[in-house]
Amino acid sequence: MEERLQQQINFILETDKLKNVIRRNFLSDDSRRENTAEHSWHSILLAQIFFEYAENKSELDLLHIIKMITVHDLVEIYAGDTFIFDETGYEDKFERENAAAKKLFSLLPGNQAEEYYALWLEFEREETPDAIYACSIDKIMPVMLNTYSKGTSWREANITSEQVFRTLKVLEKGPTTVWNLLHQLVKISEKKQNLM
Amino acid sequence: MEERLQQQINFILETDKLKNVIRRNFLSDDSRRENTAEHSWHSILLAQIFFEYAENKSELDLLHIIKMITVHDLVEIYAGDTFIFDETGYEDKFERENAAAKKLFSLLPGNQAEEYYALWLEFEREETPDAIYACSIDKIMPVMLNTYSKGTSWREANITSEQVFRTLKVLEKGPTTVWNLLHQLVKISEKKQNLM
Ligand SMILES: [Ca+2]
Repeated sequence: MEERLQQQINFILETDKLKNVIRRNFLSDDSRRENTAEHSWHSILLAQIFFEYAENKSELDLLHIIKMITVHDLVEIYAGDTFIFDETGYEDKFERENAAAKKLFSLLPGNQAEEYYALWLEFEREETPDAIYACSIDKIMPVMLNTYSKGTSWREANITSEQVFRTLKVLEKGPTTVWNLLHQLVKISEKKQNLM
Repeated sequence: MEERLQQQINFILETDKLKNVIRRNFLSDDSRRENTAEHSWHSILLAQIFFEYAENKSELDLLHIIKMITVHDLVEIYAGDTFIFDETGYEDKFERENAAAKKLFSLLPGNQAEEYYALWLEFEREETPDAIYACSIDKIMPVMLNTYSKGTSWREANITSEQVFRTLKVLEKGPTTVWNLLHQLVKISEKKQNLM
């Protein structure tokens, strides 16, 4: 088999491991915790459905956004999932994930390795308009799931509305509808006591 | 909450169920069977990695392809997964899935409901260049997983190389590299006795 193709296959097989990285939040039917691969799929779908709400959509590149969402969590294969409210885990998160990104994407042939490492870094930095939109989608998704379920991952950790707003500040730079939605979901969650 | 947004949220919550639709094939580490949501994510990734092999890529629209892959299996939420080698299950597959598609996509606001139903139908028909590429990716993915694992979903059903080639004929219309890869993977699988 041609080496380039073998490298791509090795990468695809290694990324299979994302299906066994378990996140904190539960599915909407409370049956089990979500894995990161299915979370990535769901975020890719939401990015499409909510795209109309991006006030700056004429400057955005939805394909580029989807590429970012597809790969942004692959680092968890080596670095694990870090609970967004885990402030200790967050101290060295970038170092751990950057090392994981270099290790994983280097399985790809040179030009693709560079392309996908750059996509990961862009999402991580949350600076470009595309990255801000992608992050907004990625972060509103678990809020939706926690609101319209028993909210177990919030309840078990005594998460407060204040913590949610503090960790999801980036949504203020994203689509207004999504920022407003965050407030609406927090209100519903408080009423249901999914949030303190 | 605005009705349009509420409809979109209802759709997103309903699609969460795809994470509990279980396919036949196992993950590459043989730990468990794959669910359809994580399969969709992995196919979206593969569609990007293999795009360079599409001889007709200048006619293709990768964003459109990814949108198709994102939603093409959502019908399984109501219709269940049909094993590709299950010839009886295949007899009424289109009717069951078409009804499921109409039920599910109608949760979305009008214009999005139409757009996503059309995407599903296009993938289903396997006629357009975009659909042929999307199908090729979707179908080579489990062959890869079955080859580079114990191949349990093939072994338990005594699947033969002839059955694989017969059900995956569409790959002949897709990128040559992917068609050739199918032959290489079948050869490896025969040697490992994952295929009869
Ligand atoms: Ca994420």
